[in-house]
Amino acid sequence: MKISARNVFEGQITALTPGPINAAVTLTLSGGDQLVAVVTQASVVDLGLAVGGRAFAIVKAPWVIVTTDDGGLRLSARNHLRGTVSAVKAGPINAEVVITLPGGTVVHAVVTQDAVAELGLKPGVAASAVIKASHVVLGV
Amino acid sequence: MKISARNVFEGQITALTPGPINAAVTLTLSGGDQLVAVVTQASVVDLGLAVGGRAFAIVKAPWVIVTTDDGGLRLSARNHLRGTVSAVKAGPINAEVVITLPGGTVVHAVVTQDAVAELGLKPGVAASAVIKASHVVLGV
Amino acid sequence: MKISARNVFEGQITALTPGPINAAVTLTLSGGDQLVAVVTQASVVDLGLAVGGRAFAIVKAPWVIVTTDDGGLRLSARNHLRGTVSAVKAGPINAEVVITLPGGTVVHAVVTQDAVAELGLKPGVAASAVIKASHVVLGV
Repeated sequence: MKISARNVFEGQITALTPGPINAAVTLTLSGGDQLVAVVTQASVVDLGLAVGGRAFAIVKAPWVIVTTDDGGLRLSARNHLRGTVSAVKAGPINAEVVITLPGGTVVHAVVTQDAVAELGLKPGVAASAVIKASHVVLGV
Repeated sequence: MKISARNVFEGQITALTPGPINAAVTLTLSGGDQLVAVVTQASVVDLGLAVGGRAFAIVKAPWVIVTTDDGGLRLSARNHLRGTVSAVKAGPINAEVVITLPGGTVVHAVVTQDAVAELGLKPGVAASAVIKASHVVLGV
Repeated sequence: MKISARNVFEGQITALTPGPINAAVTLTLSGGDQLVAVVTQASVVDLGLAVGGRAFAIVKAPWVIVTTDDGGLRLSARNHLRGTVSAVKAGPINAEVVITLPGGTVVHAVVTQDAVAELGLKPGVAASAVIKASHVVLGV
């Protein structure tokens, strides 16, 4: 697949809730992690999305929030992938942060350089990739 | 809270409209500004979101649109926070723009360097931060 | 219009599907390309959006996915604008990619520098700009 998005996760559709405009689709990745996507109901029909089918969840790196808070914070974002920072590439404004999940899945995030400093992001630090369901594109 | 998102606004939930897949949640910030978030209905239940409760609205800087147009332009984005540019940090492609609202709330935006030049963004310039409701993550 | 978003497309509303929280609005651009936006139903009412009316579709460059895959890949993102790369501006982390559509419309995307290398993005290469409907802001 030739796509600019840094995150392309393959998995199986394990739940699908239709709605009038949008639908919620749950993908279970090979490592066992789950990703929820909210896509238009028109896409569900067009792509023939159904429980049991396979699909790709596609997420651009700037759409990923990184958190090192595993304390009391609970977020409305449906996707909260816990892992470990495996790489940080610094730039003048932005930085690219790579988080590796226990199942081996790799998540790329682009955050500000300020955030890298504040959160102390560097290889080995426990961190989560937080992704809002409405930011996930599905592909088949 | 240890989160990479540059914008974390605390407020009180003053309205909540449920829907089959998504819900609209209005947060009133301490300075009186209002922020509308569209989150999944599942999150409303999971986080126990209800009118009167407190929550954080979380928005990554690249999701914020900056406008200096207070003329006729009207946008579908529910959140239009009027303030003054208080800082601009330039980079080769992107720039970070800080807008301070009258109530003291500070909003961070990452826009292209081209946009900074075109809009003449610099400290002291009146500008608005525009945020689409479906781009706001809620936290409790 | 003084707005930081790099993509502002004018067109006519040719379809509108209302919903309880969100509505889907289709805009037909002057070049014939179509763009679907998912906005809140409250915005439809506030802006007086209706079939036959004119509106602007506004999309920040980091929301645009670039793909050079015109093979079997099918995406849930409603907007798939096929064109040719007309410019690439490189940065340390991100790059700005400009795609010109056959009708003359120009689309700006910010992608990672890694993606530019992997996809071989340079002037003359056929590429598509993929935009999720919920990432489009409408203006009037």
